[in-house]
Amino acid sequence: MTEHELVRELAEKNASKIVMLVADGLGGLPMEPHGRTELETANTPNLDRLASRGTSGLSVPVLPGITPGSGPGHLGLFGYDPLAFKIGRGALEATGIGFELGPKDVAARGNFCTLDSAGLISDRRAGRIPSEESFKVVERLQAVNIPGVETFVKPVKEHRFVVVFRGEGLDGAVADTDPQAIGVAPLDPSPVTPAAQRTADIAKEFVRQARALLADEKKANGMVLRGFAAKPQLPSYLDLYGLRAAAIAVYPMYKGLAQLAGMTLVGKAQSLDEQIDELAKCWNDYDFFFLHFKYTDSTGEDGAFEQKVKRIEELDRAMPRIEKLGPDVLIVTGDHSTPSKLKSHSWHPVPTLLWADTCRPDGLEKFSERDCLRGGFGQFPAKHLMLLAMAHALRFGKYGA
Amino acid sequence: MTEHELVRELAEKNASKIVMLVADGLGGLPMEPHGRTELETANTPNLDRLASRGTSGLSVPVLPGITPGSGPGHLGLFGYDPLAFKIGRGALEATGIGFELGPKDVAARGNFCTLDSAGLISDRRAGRIPSEESFKVVERLQAVNIPGVETFVKPVKEHRFVVVFRGEGLDGAVADTDPQAIGVAPLDPSPVTPAAQRTADIAKEFVRQARALLADEKKANGMVLRGFAAKPQLPSYLDLYGLRAAAIAVYPMYKGLAQLAGMTLVGKAQSLDEQIDELAKCWNDYDFFFLHFKYTDSTGEDGAFEQKVKRIEELDRAMPRIEKLGPDVLIVTGDHSTPSKLKSHSWHPVPTLLWADTCRPDGLEKFSERDCLRGGFGQFPAKHLMLLAMAHALRFGKYGA
Repeated sequence: MTEHELVRELAEKNASKIVMLVADGLGGLPMEPHGRTELETANTPNLDRLASRGTSGLSVPVLPGITPGSGPGHLGLFGYDPLAFKIGRGALEATGIGFELGPKDVAARGNFCTLDSAGLISDRRAGRIPSEESFKVVERLQAVNIPGVETFVKPVKEHRFVVVFRGEGLDGAVADTDPQAIGVAPLDPSPVTPAAQRTADIAKEFVRQARALLADEKKANGMVLRGFAAKPQLPSYLDLYGLRAAAIAVYPMYKGLAQLAGMTLVGKAQSLDEQIDELAKCWNDYDFFFLHFKYTDSTGEDGAFEQKVKRIEELDRAMPRIEKLGPDVLIVTGDHSTPSKLKSHSWHPVPTLLWADTCRPDGLEKFSERDCLRGGFGQFPAKHLMLLAMAHALRFGKYGA
Repeated sequence: MTEHELVRELAEKNASKIVMLVADGLGGLPMEPHGRTELETANTPNLDRLASRGTSGLSVPVLPGITPGSGPGHLGLFGYDPLAFKIGRGALEATGIGFELGPKDVAARGNFCTLDSAGLISDRRAGRIPSEESFKVVERLQAVNIPGVETFVKPVKEHRFVVVFRGEGLDGAVADTDPQAIGVAPLDPSPVTPAAQRTADIAKEFVRQARALLADEKKANGMVLRGFAAKPQLPSYLDLYGLRAAAIAVYPMYKGLAQLAGMTLVGKAQSLDEQIDELAKCWNDYDFFFLHFKYTDSTGEDGAFEQKVKRIEELDRAMPRIEKLGPDVLIVTGDHSTPSKLKSHSWHPVPTLLWADTCRPDGLEKFSERDCLRGGFGQFPAKHLMLLAMAHALRFGKYGA
């Protein structure tokens, strides 16, 4: 019996409310030996109080030593095994710009490049043209017209864009067209499996028309396509857990990831305060609430230790407003660590706390990496967090008699 | 290589004795935040001494957040993955009343119901007839006679009974006949897979004869059958571990579960003291001894915190008599937690200690949830406990050269 089969068998409904607050990249490292992490440095009286009444632990996003991107990081927190459920690059890129993928879509990442008169790549990033220029080039590609499919071309940033084909029987198993070198021509889109022949043909036709439309461009007169992928098939929160789930996020990537799990996007909040306003407004309409806080990650990526500390303190100050709504289960965690010291995502386990009336005390008085290490959940796979959330919400029946 | 293949490959025999004392529902919760659990409240000098000399940890019965019934809870402790080995409802119910299932048996749970003159269900529980009345109704069903199979009908409680068919080629894949509603007729037993056609026909004939025999009953003139199941195929303790295993339990359910694992039922003890008398008597005849203590669960189920504390202290006082027999490995654990606060089984990990001469000290001085969290076994799947038992009994050879 798989974990998801078990979840489906045991899930029950009640009136409980579960809040999962994801502080992106929450975990950190000290800058110096024997120093403190960002979370250990921050003044967090509210999180400490929650930790002292709840149960804490360290969640392992994928496996020990594995650094996840945002996709696998969130899949784990949402209860999907990130090694079993994969989001193809194209699908993630489309999701990240707020494009809502449908079941008939195949998405790919596009990079504009510069081709010489012989059609060979002379610049793999089209001189890194600025986004404003690139957006105009993308605009010209709206004229592409391929019989039998709808084609969407959307700008991302600089030389990057996304193309989505929508039609019957499309298949993501198309090889990248990027030869990863200059002085050679882009590859033709080709199928990896026979079922993707038609999708490869469509992509080829797209490239043919695009090349004609962009023939007079100086920099962005060619393109390579990578990471062809259909929308991943994730069982939804409603289907799996029986939870009506709301996502309250600021950035498109996290809205998109929540949508892949069948959550409903709520509001247009631009700040944590506004996110909590939205939370209060939709409190009666949902059972589960995913709140995403980006800035613990972005400050970590910038290597801005003190800024990350301040962002953690901002998060801490927001806790009482959330608590006042009366959640039955309140979780604070991250999708991965982003230590300022490394200026990047990392593999280090992520401080996680769960507060509920059914918590067994673990003797902690603070919320920090060091304390979580001694917490009642120990170190656990992130994909098990939803099992604990459902249990503490008393939404699971007994397994076996 | 599966864990059981590994066990078979490495198991060796010696003269060691392993005692596994299962305090049902041992783990608990404080009634108030920052309070103590039942085990933390109890005065347990003997268990504390064992913990200080042994190794402790928290066992996770199935998965984090999953609350097990007695069946999966014990399967885990006995070394069977409770997600891979399942005991069908009918088989568990038969086991629970002490019916020893054989390899040719299919068991189902029966509920008497009241049928109106049109044969439609008017009361799904036959007015919850008292057990004495129900027993008489069951008695009338002994007259059922189906060619080619033996039929056993046994009372359980109130409107509940068990029916077991014994014969060649029977199969548990028969659908429930309970329409889960009143105003409709019970369903006919029907096969879920073609192999169960004959079993479904036999069940149908059982219902036909039973209806005739009970036609003049006022309340219990009909029945629904649920949870058809054959005896689960568990490799036995002797086969897997090379252990001659004895079960010393008071209640039929736990005797039955032990029997499914191939243990021999020993004695007719009605109290913990008598169980230890039996243990002493059969000490030389077995290698492994399962002792089951029910009252830590039943007091928890009643929400009787103080009573559960007293039962834990009763258990503690019994330890020296067990130690005096000279076990090589002495384990104290539970099949799940039953916090008085929740008045039910729960998903919280279970305090577990193992004493043997080969334990690495973990610095604990007490046996409690809080201490076990810092114990040498950490948090571990219950199904791994038998691996540790075998290791500390020096009954495992080396894996690989």
